[in-house]
Amino acid sequence: MELVIVGSLALDTIEAPAGRVENEVGGSATYASLAASYFTKPGLVGIVGTDFPPEQKKAFEAHGINLAGMQIAEGKTFRWGGRYSPHLDQRETLFTELNVFEKFSPELPESFQSAPYVLLANIQPDLQHHVLDQIVGKPFVAVDTMNLWINTALESLKRLLHRTDLLIVNDEEAKMLTGETGYGAAARALQNMGPRWLVIKKGQHGALLFGPDEAVFSAPALVYSRVTDPTGAGDAFAGGMLGYLAQTGDTGFATLRRAVIHGSVMSSFAIEDFSATGLLSLKSSALENRYAKFQEIANF
Amino acid sequence: MELVIVGSLALDTIEAPAGRVENEVGGSATYASLAASYFTKPGLVGIVGTDFPPEQKKAFEAHGINLAGMQIAEGKTFRWGGRYSPHLDQRETLFTELNVFEKFSPELPESFQSAPYVLLANIQPDLQHHVLDQIVGKPFVAVDTMNLWINTALESLKRLLHRTDLLIVNDEEAKMLTGETGYGAAARALQNMGPRWLVIKKGQHGALLFGPDEAVFSAPALVYSRVTDPTGAGDAFAGGMLGYLAQTGDTGFATLRRAVIHGSVMSSFAIEDFSATGLLSLKSSALENRYAKFQEIANF
Repeated sequence: MELVIVGSLALDTIEAPAGRVENEVGGSATYASLAASYFTKPGLVGIVGTDFPPEQKKAFEAHGINLAGMQIAEGKTFRWGGRYSPHLDQRETLFTELNVFEKFSPELPESFQSAPYVLLANIQPDLQHHVLDQIVGKPFVAVDTMNLWINTALESLKRLLHRTDLLIVNDEEAKMLTGETGYGAAARALQNMGPRWLVIKKGQHGALLFGPDEAVFSAPALVYSRVTDPTGAGDAFAGGMLGYLAQTGDTGFATLRRAVIHGSVMSSFAIEDFSATGLLSLKSSALENRYAKFQEIANF
Repeated sequence: MELVIVGSLALDTIEAPAGRVENEVGGSATYASLAASYFTKPGLVGIVGTDFPPEQKKAFEAHGINLAGMQIAEGKTFRWGGRYSPHLDQRETLFTELNVFEKFSPELPESFQSAPYVLLANIQPDLQHHVLDQIVGKPFVAVDTMNLWINTALESLKRLLHRTDLLIVNDEEAKMLTGETGYGAAARALQNMGPRWLVIKKGQHGALLFGPDEAVFSAPALVYSRVTDPTGAGDAFAGGMLGYLAQTGDTGFATLRRAVIHGSVMSSFAIEDFSATGLLSLKSSALENRYAKFQEIANF
């Protein structure tokens, strides 16, 4: 196995201008694993309750996702509800029921422990540490996080950054972590905290990839994209990016640039439909065409 | 002559974190003409007072700028004073003295009237109309504007857009003109007002070029750039862009993409030093290296 993905598995209720869905499978590990599955056969580590829909397990398996690290605990699956504003630019959390997730302790099956790529999708930093403690060897470690952990678990998160090869944050998180408003200054500050590589996601402005010695890649965003439900956009980005790295087995700057675009491609599919529906059953020609769109928009 | 540039000529007093300059030559036509002069020998149309420094006229001439359309009127040159915030992201106008500019009526010398490229740099839209009324033939007309004219001369500006091939606006102006917050929707609305081509400048996020049939080009911004004085960044962008178009004699999408990058290059030099100093005496190797930096940051 080339890539291990650790994160949340949830049943989401989402309200958006285009409609409403109830108890649809979501969570950071769901989006990331499905996105990564187009490049490699990732191993998923997470926890669900006994109410988790069996057909969803089958969907994961149909995507080649290894579920040996998926714990099924007595009780209900983590549930989350959110509502988007009319222009989809703001989100309000309606409810969070941790349920079995509250006692989650990620355990890596032996076959997962020597994977050369690890994606710590968005969960509590202490759990992310616990995953790394079980790792054998020196994998390429990518970390995603969120404002909640910056506010409530900053010390643990900062220690984690010293164990991180690639940090993936958004605009707001970069500012929260560094206090810097300019991208160059924020990147320098974040790289000084540990990670050699850094991605700052800028929503409709694309993404920036930072490497050693002020190396920068600026990835565009699509302009005329269809957005139905932004949930999971960042997780799909991280999954697509790491899936591509695991597939190529390389982490040079040129490969990382293309990985950012593959992440953007998967993210663009994720938001076209509710929940993770946009990431199901994509044809390779659809992925290639979308990648070509990014080339077309950036080429000069 | 391939390119006529009409705009303001001013003596600026600028306060920024790096220092203060007084009565330095500025104005939209100054920045745009100097930027364009690296690609073509533009004709400048504007007005100054008898106090305009003779050495500045010589600097224009040394850059190959044709001053046959520069009026010298009895009185003082237009003066403007501004102060930047510590992070250079906000600007406060300290004073505006129109002086001879108040009675400016741009007159095109006969040798200017058949130029195939016209840049109407930022001035009152009625004056921009008056320039077009003197034009012979069907030039490629580029228009720059600002929030002041959107607020005070909207009707005239809207009529002007029907005579415009390329509109250059920033983020805020695009929103003011259309009420749209998404770039795709704003572009559609602006293109419906007349211009076939549209550039939306996004500051630290680069720029978007829109063409017919939802054609889009996303240009990156440099991240580790040095900024001393942002005054004239937009004018230098427009001048570099139109200068390059005039040099190539082509307005296809591929050429326009490269023109946006050349505009970004000139803009990046303009802001490195106070007033227009950053646009003086640049070596062609410096321009090429800067262009290559944009390629490096965008390439994947």
